[in-house]
Amino acid sequence: MGAINGNDYITRLNLLNNEIWYDGEKIEGPLSEYPAFKGLIQSKAALYDLQHDPEIKDEMTFISPVSGEMIGLSYLQPKTKEDLIRRRKMTEHWAKYSMGTMGRSPDYLNTVLTSFASSVPFLKNKENCFPNNLQAFYEFARENDLSFTHTFISPQVNRSQIYIENTDEPIAAKIVATNEEGIFVKGARLLATQGGLTDEVLVFSVGKFLFNEDEAFAFSIPSNTKGIKFICRDTFIGGQSSFDHPLSSRFEEMDSIVVFDNVLVPWSRVFYYNNAEVAEEFPIQSSFHPFAKHQVLTRQIVKTEFILGIAELLIETINISGYQHIQEKMSEIIIGLETMKALLEKAENNAELDEWGFMRPEIFPLQVAGNIFPKIYPRFTEIIQLLGASGMIALPTEKSFHSSIRKDLNSYLKGATKTAEERVQIFRLAWDLTMSSFGTRQTQYERYFFGDPIRLASDLYKKYPRDEFVKVVSDFLHLKREG
Amino acid sequence: MGAINGNDYITRLNLLNNEIWYDGEKIEGPLSEYPAFKGLIQSKAALYDLQHDPEIKDEMTFISPVSGEMIGLSYLQPKTKEDLIRRRKMTEHWAKYSMGTMGRSPDYLNTVLTSFASSVPFLKNKENCFPNNLQAFYEFARENDLSFTHTFISPQVNRSQIYIENTDEPIAAKIVATNEEGIFVKGARLLATQGGLTDEVLVFSVGKFLFNEDEAFAFSIPSNTKGIKFICRDTFIGGQSSFDHPLSSRFEEMDSIVVFDNVLVPWSRVFYYNNAEVAEEFPIQSSFHPFAKHQVLTRQIVKTEFILGIAELLIETINISGYQHIQEKMSEIIIGLETMKALLEKAENNAELDEWGFMRPEIFPLQVAGNIFPKIYPRFTEIIQLLGASGMIALPTEKSFHSSIRKDLNSYLKGATKTAEERVQIFRLAWDLTMSSFGTRQTQYERYFFGDPIRLASDLYKKYPRDEFVKVVSDFLHLKREG
Amino acid sequence: MGAINGNDYITRLNLLNNEIWYDGEKIEGPLSEYPAFKGLIQSKAALYDLQHDPEIKDEMTFISPVSGEMIGLSYLQPKTKEDLIRRRKMTEHWAKYSMGTMGRSPDYLNTVLTSFASSVPFLKNKENCFPNNLQAFYEFARENDLSFTHTFISPQVNRSQIYIENTDEPIAAKIVATNEEGIFVKGARLLATQGGLTDEVLVFSVGKFLFNEDEAFAFSIPSNTKGIKFICRDTFIGGQSSFDHPLSSRFEEMDSIVVFDNVLVPWSRVFYYNNAEVAEEFPIQSSFHPFAKHQVLTRQIVKTEFILGIAELLIETINISGYQHIQEKMSEIIIGLETMKALLEKAENNAELDEWGFMRPEIFPLQVAGNIFPKIYPRFTEIIQLLGASGMIALPTEKSFHSSIRKDLNSYLKGATKTAEERVQIFRLAWDLTMSSFGTRQTQYERYFFGDPIRLASDLYKKYPRDEFVKVVSDFLHLKREG
Amino acid sequence: MGAINGNDYITRLNLLNNEIWYDGEKIEGPLSEYPAFKGLIQSKAALYDLQHDPEIKDEMTFISPVSGEMIGLSYLQPKTKEDLIRRRKMTEHWAKYSMGTMGRSPDYLNTVLTSFASSVPFLKNKENCFPNNLQAFYEFARENDLSFTHTFISPQVNRSQIYIENTDEPIAAKIVATNEEGIFVKGARLLATQGGLTDEVLVFSVGKFLFNEDEAFAFSIPSNTKGIKFICRDTFIGGQSSFDHPLSSRFEEMDSIVVFDNVLVPWSRVFYYNNAEVAEEFPIQSSFHPFAKHQVLTRQIVKTEFILGIAELLIETINISGYQHIQEKMSEIIIGLETMKALLEKAENNAELDEWGFMRPEIFPLQVAGNIFPKIYPRFTEIIQLLGASGMIALPTEKSFHSSIRKDLNSYLKGATKTAEERVQIFRLAWDLTMSSFGTRQTQYERYFFGDPIRLASDLYKKYPRDEFVKVVSDFLHLKREG
Repeated sequence: MGAINGNDYITRLNLLNNEIWYDGEKIEGPLSEYPAFKGLIQSKAALYDLQHDPEIKDEMTFISPVSGEMIGLSYLQPKTKEDLIRRRKMTEHWAKYSMGTMGRSPDYLNTVLTSFASSVPFLKNKENCFPNNLQAFYEFARENDLSFTHTFISPQVNRSQIYIENTDEPIAAKIVATNEEGIFVKGARLLATQGGLTDEVLVFSVGKFLFNEDEAFAFSIPSNTKGIKFICRDTFIGGQSSFDHPLSSRFEEMDSIVVFDNVLVPWSRVFYYNNAEVAEEFPIQSSFHPFAKHQVLTRQIVKTEFILGIAELLIETINISGYQHIQEKMSEIIIGLETMKALLEKAENNAELDEWGFMRPEIFPLQVAGNIFPKIYPRFTEIIQLLGASGMIALPTEKSFHSSIRKDLNSYLKGATKTAEERVQIFRLAWDLTMSSFGTRQTQYERYFFGDPIRLASDLYKKYPRDEFVKVVSDFLHLKREG
Repeated sequence: MGAINGNDYITRLNLLNNEIWYDGEKIEGPLSEYPAFKGLIQSKAALYDLQHDPEIKDEMTFISPVSGEMIGLSYLQPKTKEDLIRRRKMTEHWAKYSMGTMGRSPDYLNTVLTSFASSVPFLKNKENCFPNNLQAFYEFARENDLSFTHTFISPQVNRSQIYIENTDEPIAAKIVATNEEGIFVKGARLLATQGGLTDEVLVFSVGKFLFNEDEAFAFSIPSNTKGIKFICRDTFIGGQSSFDHPLSSRFEEMDSIVVFDNVLVPWSRVFYYNNAEVAEEFPIQSSFHPFAKHQVLTRQIVKTEFILGIAELLIETINISGYQHIQEKMSEIIIGLETMKALLEKAENNAELDEWGFMRPEIFPLQVAGNIFPKIYPRFTEIIQLLGASGMIALPTEKSFHSSIRKDLNSYLKGATKTAEERVQIFRLAWDLTMSSFGTRQTQYERYFFGDPIRLASDLYKKYPRDEFVKVVSDFLHLKREG
Repeated sequence: MGAINGNDYITRLNLLNNEIWYDGEKIEGPLSEYPAFKGLIQSKAALYDLQHDPEIKDEMTFISPVSGEMIGLSYLQPKTKEDLIRRRKMTEHWAKYSMGTMGRSPDYLNTVLTSFASSVPFLKNKENCFPNNLQAFYEFARENDLSFTHTFISPQVNRSQIYIENTDEPIAAKIVATNEEGIFVKGARLLATQGGLTDEVLVFSVGKFLFNEDEAFAFSIPSNTKGIKFICRDTFIGGQSSFDHPLSSRFEEMDSIVVFDNVLVPWSRVFYYNNAEVAEEFPIQSSFHPFAKHQVLTRQIVKTEFILGIAELLIETINISGYQHIQEKMSEIIIGLETMKALLEKAENNAELDEWGFMRPEIFPLQVAGNIFPKIYPRFTEIIQLLGASGMIALPTEKSFHSSIRKDLNSYLKGATKTAEERVQIFRLAWDLTMSSFGTRQTQYERYFFGDPIRLASDLYKKYPRDEFVKVVSDFLHLKREG
Repeated sequence: MGAINGNDYITRLNLLNNEIWYDGEKIEGPLSEYPAFKGLIQSKAALYDLQHDPEIKDEMTFISPVSGEMIGLSYLQPKTKEDLIRRRKMTEHWAKYSMGTMGRSPDYLNTVLTSFASSVPFLKNKENCFPNNLQAFYEFARENDLSFTHTFISPQVNRSQIYIENTDEPIAAKIVATNEEGIFVKGARLLATQGGLTDEVLVFSVGKFLFNEDEAFAFSIPSNTKGIKFICRDTFIGGQSSFDHPLSSRFEEMDSIVVFDNVLVPWSRVFYYNNAEVAEEFPIQSSFHPFAKHQVLTRQIVKTEFILGIAELLIETINISGYQHIQEKMSEIIIGLETMKALLEKAENNAELDEWGFMRPEIFPLQVAGNIFPKIYPRFTEIIQLLGASGMIALPTEKSFHSSIRKDLNSYLKGATKTAEERVQIFRLAWDLTMSSFGTRQTQYERYFFGDPIRLASDLYKKYPRDEFVKVVSDFLHLKREG
C-alpha cells in the first residue's frame, strides 16, 4: 500500500480496538474522537498527509525496491551521504509541523526499526536469533507504513544498584513460557509514548548492562494483540482552545504503562530471545545509535530554532533587546543552536559505510549532542521564563477576549510592538512550552531522551579514542610508552 | 472584633460582591463556592481558624492595646527580639499549613501594613503626606483583622530603559483628578495575587527609581469600591481531587489584573500622593524591607523543609539513597536550608531598635537570603525532577485506583518501601510542586518575589558596608588613605 | 614555660636540626636564615609575639590550670559558649596577620590536639589505646606551647577504589615492628605543611573508611626524631620583595613529604595503634570536627573579608563600580561572606556540652560551611581575575619604579583614584593571591582542606537528620508511617 | 628573501637593538641570550625552522606571486576552500610545537596583516586612508617574512563608561602632530605580547565603539624606531629546567607596555588616520574576524587536545579512570573538543568568497567558538586541578632526583603505571599549564583573547540573523507580520 495519508492512519487505528485505560475507564468508541487523543491523532494524520503534499512529496517518500510504490522516507536504509541528507530533510519537514515537540513523530521508531534491519547480519548464526524475521518484518512495516510505539523502561520499583527482582509474579516484562506458536510474555513496561495509538508495539531493551536471560528479547506485535493493556497517565492537555493551549491541545502524546498479560508473541515476530549477550550487543553494534541519534538531533535543532524564535518574539513584544543580560541569554540559545548544527554537519560529513554497506553518520558528534541537549534544553526553558518574567503568569484566556472585558485587555496587556491579543498568544505559547504540564513533560523528556545523563557522559568518555592525545603529550615529555 | 475565624472571613468576603472576571465572565454568586476559588478560600479559612486553635492560639494572637481583644499576631509591632520571635512562630504556623506554598497567606500583607504603620513618623510634615490616616487605618485593619491584596507591577507594555508612557488614556494606574472627597485613579496594575478575594486592596509602589508624580501614591480601599475590576488569569487548579492535585486543588491563589476605572479614593484612605521622593524613600526608610523579608524568609524555610521531606520520600520510595550523585543533590538542599536558617538567626540576633522604637531584624542577612532563594528554589525543583526522573511522568489518576485496573497498578507501580497508591501520591505531590502549572508558577513567584534578581544583587552591593575591608587591605599594603 | 614569643620559637626551631631536603640538598645551618623558609618563620614568630602584645595578650592567652602561667589560648578546652567566642577571637587575631593565607597558623593543630584531649574518655578501656598518654602529651604541649605539623595523606600511587598496597617495602607509613620501647614506623606520608618547621609531627588518619590495622595509629614525635626526613616541594616564593610578592615572600608555608625510616615512636607518645575501629571512630566521635571546623571557618571568614577588600580596591582603582555585572560579582562575595558569618554564629549559638563536659559548636552549620567554601573560594579568585582583567598581567616590578622608567610608569599605569605605584601594589596583591603559584596553591588548599568535596557532600547528607521532614510530608499526605 | 629560518630570525632580531626595559634596567647585548627571552626566542626560531623542514615544508610555504620564492603560508590570501585548509594545516604544525601555548606564534599577526591586505579596496577613496600603503607593506612583510607584535589596549586608567581622557599629556597613544614626513604619536598602549622581540609593531584598534579622531589610526613601524620603548612585566619563567618548568622555560612570551615618545610614523607606513568611522568599520568589514578567528580556533583545538592528553595521562598515572565523576569531567573536555572541531569544520564548509574575491570562513561558528572557549578553557584548567588534587602540590624538583634522596622519591612518588620521575614530569606539566604564573596568564589570555566576554555575547546576538525564526513562530501563531 505504500506511504499512507492521514485518513489511512485514522481509519486503521480506529479499527484496531486497542485496550486503553484512561482515568479508571476502558476507552470505547473511535480513538480519534476521544478528547485526550483527538488533538494528537489529528496532528499525526497531518504528518502522514505531508507524505502526499505535492510540494514535498519527493522529499518525504522513495520508491519501494519491492513494490515500486512510493513509501515513507523514514524507512530508507541510507547507503550514501546523500541518503543521510534526504533522511534529515524528511525529519525536518515532520519536525517543523510540531516545532519539534512531537518526540515520537513516526520517523523516530521507523528509523529505529530501519537501523535494526540494516544490521540484520549481526544476528546470523547466533543462538535464539531470527534475522530473517527481522528483515521480513521491516519490509512488511515499510510497505504498509506501520506506526509504532516502543517501551524501554522497566517498572521503577527499586533503583538501588544491587536490586534483583524476586517476586512471585513478574513485574518487569519477562518470558514466562514458550511453545511451538511463540513466546509468552508477562509483566509490564513503562512509558510507552503514544501507547495504544499506533499499529504496533516494538519491544526491546537498551542501555542496561546486566540482563536476565528472560528479559533479553526483541519483538514487535500489533497493539490489539490479546492480553496487552495500555494504562494512561493523566492527560497534559490544558484545554481544547488552541489560543489558550497552542501546543498541548495539538501535540500532547500521552504516555502509558504497557501490561503484558501472558501475551503470545508468534515466532514470526520474534527477532531474538533468551540471549543476554545479543540483547546487550545488538543495540550497540547495530546502526541504532547513529541512525536514531541523527533523527533526534535533527528534530532537536528544529525545536531549538523554535525556541530562538519564541525568545526573540518575547523580546520584541516588550522591547527588551537593549539589555546586556538579555543579549547574553540570547547568545546562549544561539551558541546552543550553532553548536548542534555544527555537530550534525560534522556527523554527516564524516559518515562512513559500515561493514554491512550502510552509511552511518559519525557517532561522536552525535553522542556529544546527546550529552549537550539534555543540559541546554532545560536552560533554554529557563531563559524563556526569565525573559517573560511576571508576564508569563498574568495571562487571561481566549474567552476573555471575546467578552466585554476585551477593551480593558486591549489597553492594559498590549505590547510595545504587538496588540494585546497577539501578546497574550505569544506569551501563552512560551508558557505552554516551558511552564504548562505539557511543557514540563517536554523538559523531562528531552532531559532523559537517551537515558541517565551520568551514564551518557561515562559512555562518551569510555568510547572516545584518547590514545593519540596521550601519545602527543608523552612525546612532548619524552616519556617511554609501552607497547 | 479582633482576630477572625474562617467563617468570619468567608461570610465577610461573600458579602462584598467584588467585580471579578474569569474566563470572559463576571462572577456571580458566593465566591466561596466558585470552583476556581473554593479551594483557596477554604485554605484561608483554615488559616484564620488556627487563630482560635486552643493549642496555638496564644502564639497566633495578642491583646489589642486598644480594645483588649485577642487580635492577629501578624499585626504585632515588634519592640523586642522576643516580639520578632513571636512573629516568626506565627508565620511558621501559618506557613506549615500550606507547606509554604501560599505566598500570600494573610501575614504577608498584614506585616507590610504593620511595617508602614511602624514608620509613620517618617511621613510627618512632608508634602501631600497623611501619617495620621495611615496610623488610623492600620489600627482599623488590625482590630477588624482585614485581609489584603496588593499590586505593585505596572503593565509590561514596554520594558526598555528609556520608555516613557505617552498614551491618551493612562495604562499604568495614575491620579487623574482630585477633589474635596479624594483622589481619582485610572489605569491598571498587574498581578494582584488573590485580587478580589480579600477585604481590601493596598496600593503602593516599590523598587522603581523614577516616579512620575502622578504614579506616586499609597492608599488602601475596599475591594468592592466602585470602579475596581479584577480580571483573572486562567486557573492553575489541575482538578478537584486532592489525590491527583494535592497542592493546586487547595492552594492555588489566582492572580489578577486590577483595573481602576476612575476610582475615587477618599482622603481618609490616602497615605500620600503626588510626592515622588516620599514614594521612593518611604519603602526604603521604613521597616518595610526588614519586616517583610523576615516574614518571607520564615515561610521560605518552611517550604525548603517541605522540599527536603519530599526529596527524601522520593529517595526512600525507589531506594536510591546509595548513589553518590543523589547524595550530592540532597546535600545541596541541606546546604540551602541550613544557610537560610543561619541567616534568619543572624538577622534576629542582631536586630536593633530603629529611631521610632521598633525592633528591626538585621537587614543584610535578609537581603542575602533574598538574593539566594530565587536561585536555589528553581534548582531545588530541578533536583526533585532529577530524583523522580521518568517516574514523574507516568502517573495515573485517583480514579484509576478505584477501577478494575487497580491490581495492575498495585503490582507495577509499587515502590521499594511504599504501596503503589502511596508511591503515586508522593510522586504526584512532587509533580504538583515542580511540574504542574501550579508548580511552575510557584517557581516563577519565588524567583521574582522581591523583583528583578539583577537589581537585588546591585542593591546588596551598593548598601553593604565595605569601607572597613578596604581599610584592612590598604593598611596591609601601607597605602595612604585619603580623609 | 607557657606561651612562647617569636624569639622562643625561632631559637627552639634552630636547635632541632631537623633533616630537611630541598632541591636535592640537605639543609644545613639555621632554618630561620634559609631563603625558602625565612619569610614564613618570621611570620610565625610575629604570630607568637602577638601572644605577648599588651593590647591583645588577654585575648591570646589564658592561665594554665597546672602551672598558673599564661598559656596560648589555642590550647583552651572550651566549657562554655564564652570559651568558644574567646577561641574565635584568638583565631581572628592570628588570621588577620596573614589575611587568612596561613592555613597552618599554630592554632590549627593546637586546636586539633586540644580536641583529641577533650575526648580522651572515648579511648578508655579500648584495645591498644592509651588515653593517659594523650592527656599527658596534650598538657606537655600546652605548657610548652609546642608547634606542630601533621600529615594525613598516604602516597597517591593508585587511587582506584579496589587498590590494595602489595609491595615489598611499605609505601604508606605503617607499623613494621613493636618492642618494649615502642612502635617502629616505616613508609611515607604526603603533604606535611610546614613539615620540618615545627617542634613536633602529629600523625593520625582521618576520612578513610577501611583501614589496615597496621595503618591505624595516632602519635606525636619531635621533628628531629631519628629516621624522619622531610622532602620539600619546590618553593612558591616568587621573590624576596614584599612589593612584588606581598604574600608569597611572607606566608609561603612549604609542604613536604615525610619519610619514616624505621622510626621508633616510644610508647609514651603512642595514643593508639593497631585498632582500625578506633582509628576510624575517634576522629568522628571526638570533638575533632566541631573544634577544627570552628577554627577553620573563623580563618576563612577573615580571608573572605580580605578578598572583599581587595576586590573593592581593584574596583575603586579603575573605577568600574557602575557596571551591573561588576555589582553582581561583588554581591557574590558579599553573599559568601554573610553566609559564612551566619553559619559560624549559628554554630556558636547552638553549641552544646558533649558527654565529657566540653562545649561543642553545632556541627551542621560548620559542615555546611565546609561544603560551601571549597566551591566559593575558587570562584572568588576567579572574580578577582575578572575584575582585574588584562590589568592582572602587565605588572612591572618594584625595581622598575626605582629606575629612570619611573616617569613613564607613573603616567601610563596610574589608576582613577591611585598612583601608578599604589595601583601596581594593589594589582600585584590580587595577582599574588589568585594567580601566582603561591595563590594557586592557596586555591587548591582551600578546595581540599577537609578532603574530597564529593565525600564531604555525602557525609553531610548521611548525618543530617531528615526524619522530621519526611514525617511532615507523610502527615500532609496522610501516609501511614511504619514504626 | 622568502620564508626565513630560525637563524635568520635570531640574527635579524639581535641587530635591531630595540629599547626594552626589564626589572628597572635597559637590556643590553643580544636579546637571544637574555634569560627572560632566551627560551621564547629559541622556540620561535624552531617554528621558523619548520618552514624549511623537508617533511612539511610544502605545507608551511607557498610560492610568492612576485618573487617566485618560497614564502610563509601564514601570508597566503585564501581564494578557495582548499586555501583555508592549507592555512589551517600550517597553523596546526606551528601550534603543535608549543601545544597551543604560544598565543602569538608568527601566524597570528601574519594572518591579521593578510586579512587587512585582503580588504584593501574597502579603504579606497576614503578620507585619510592609504590603501596602497597597506598593500605595499603587506607584500614587503610577506616577502621578507617579517614578525610582528601588536597592541590594542589603551591604559586602564579609568574604566567607567563615561570617562573621557583629559590630561595635559596623552596617556592613550594619540596623534599629536603631522608634517610632510608623517604622523607623530605620543602615549602608550598596553600588553604588547612579545613586544620588542619582533621586527615590527603593528598598531590599530579594535572593538571600541567611540573613537576620538586622534586615536583612530593604523600603521606599522620597525620595533627599533626612535622613541619606542618596551617596558616588560615581571617574567613568568619559573626556571631554566625544562623538567621543572616544561612550558614556561620555553614558551613564556612576555608582555610589555609600549611607550611612544613622539614617534614619527612615515606616511608610507600609515594605512589610515584621523578617520574614526574607518577605524571602527575596517576591522568589522574586513576579513579580520573570519581570518583571525580561524587561526585562533585552530590553535585552541590543538591546545584542547593537549589538555585532553594531559588529563588522560594524569588519570592513567594514578589509576582513577573508574570513578564516575572523573568520567564526567573527562566528558566535558571531550564535548569541548568535539564542539570546537565541529564549529571549525562548519566554518570551513560554509566558507564563501567575499566581495573582493577572498574566501572567508563562515563567521558565526567562529564567533560561537570565540564565545565558548573563554568559558571552557578556565574550566578545563580547573578539571586538571581536580584530577590531580593534592598531587598537584607536592612536587619535588629535577635536582631532587639527582640527589641521594632519589630512592625515597622513587618509592613514594611512583604512580600506578609510571615511575616516580615520569609521574613528577606529568604532574609538573599539568601544574605548569594550570597553576604556575605562566599557566594562570594562559588562562587570563584565553579568557580575554577577543576582549570582554560580555561584549562578545552581545555581538553574537546582534549579528546573528533571527528573522527567519521569528517568522516561523509568527506563522505558527498566524500572527500578522508587518513589512
